[in-house]
Amino acid sequence: MAGYHNDKDQLLRRLRRVEGQIRGLQRMVDTDTYCIDTLTQVSAATKALQSVALHLLDSHLAHCVQDAIAGGGTEADAKVAEASQAIARLMRA
Amino acid sequence: MAGYHNDKDQLLRRLRRVEGQIRGLQRMVDTDTYCIDTLTQVSAATKALQSVALHLLDSHLAHCVQDAIAGGGTEADAKVAEASQAIARLMRA
Amino acid sequence: MAGYHNDKDQLLRRLRRVEGQIRGLQRMVDTDTYCIDTLTQVSAATKALQSVALHLLDSHLAHCVQDAIAGGGTEADAKVAEASQAIARLMRA
Amino acid sequence: MAGYHNDKDQLLRRLRRVEGQIRGLQRMVDTDTYCIDTLTQVSAATKALQSVALHLLDSHLAHCVQDAIAGGGTEADAKVAEASQAIARLMRA
Repeated sequence: MAGYHNDKDQLLRRLRRVEGQIRGLQRMVDTDTYCIDTLTQVSAATKALQSVALHLLDSHLAHCVQDAIAGGGTEADAKVAEASQAIARLMRA
Repeated sequence: MAGYHNDKDQLLRRLRRVEGQIRGLQRMVDTDTYCIDTLTQVSAATKALQSVALHLLDSHLAHCVQDAIAGGGTEADAKVAEASQAIARLMRA
Repeated sequence: MAGYHNDKDQLLRRLRRVEGQIRGLQRMVDTDTYCIDTLTQVSAATKALQSVALHLLDSHLAHCVQDAIAGGGTEADAKVAEASQAIARLMRA
Repeated sequence: MAGYHNDKDQLLRRLRRVEGQIRGLQRMVDTDTYCIDTLTQVSAATKALQSVALHLLDSHLAHCVQDAIAGGGTEADAKVAEASQAIARLMRA
């Protein structure tokens, strides 16, 4: 089970809302909506995605990483290094 | 017509690809895909959205803002201020 | 004269404050300040720098780009393309 | 001792380089350097700061958080929550 297992419903609701924002963006582009209004919607969708990322990361640290460390051994270091790399990718996205 | 009018097909293709990424994310969450793999997909979708934003902004500056300035008058200053605010929103997203 | 010429005093004040934040960070690291407190200061300095960037960009659009467009010719397109590239660099920083 | 204790020399070197970049920015502004060149330097300094942040965060997870979890008890959850909040601040910076 993934670290976010208990939050799946909430995460899926948020992702469906982001999907709705992206489809809304397609309609905006298709109907030549003013650039700035379209950009505002892109900013909102990006913010919603970043918020999903923070939720996933928080669950990952609180479950997968915490379990690996509590279990001890070399797995713990590997999990921490892997989480750091994911954080780096998010900050550069 | 919006500043991006001539690039609509390309923008719509990109937005449909982002929509596919978001739907892929829903499947990943639904099937308890490992947090880090899910996060990597969130980073990819965020990057794709940021790239759409840069495209929209570039078209806006090259058409709407440029036309307003070439037309002269107070509209020019308003368009520049509006573009600056949109850039600030994107950087804070 | 740069686009931000009239705002130089304000920009220099802000940059001196960022310099103070960076020197404060060196003291924090030197005295083994708790990681999270040090990170909070890094976030504050980054935010302050991003705000300087937005100020510079706004002045650039309002003066250099606007003047180039009002002057007409091929310089206008070049200035808009150059500004778009600078915005892309800031968003990826 | 902070989580980054063993990397202090490297972190201090990086922070002194960022300080040099900020002082360079002050000279650029003071001498009316072209906005885009100044902005490029702001992007470079921001990137350098983000890289310091990632280093601090990685050390924090690998030492402070890992030690708290290995030690068990309620401290572990608190440390994970605190790290998540710091990551959120960095992503919104």
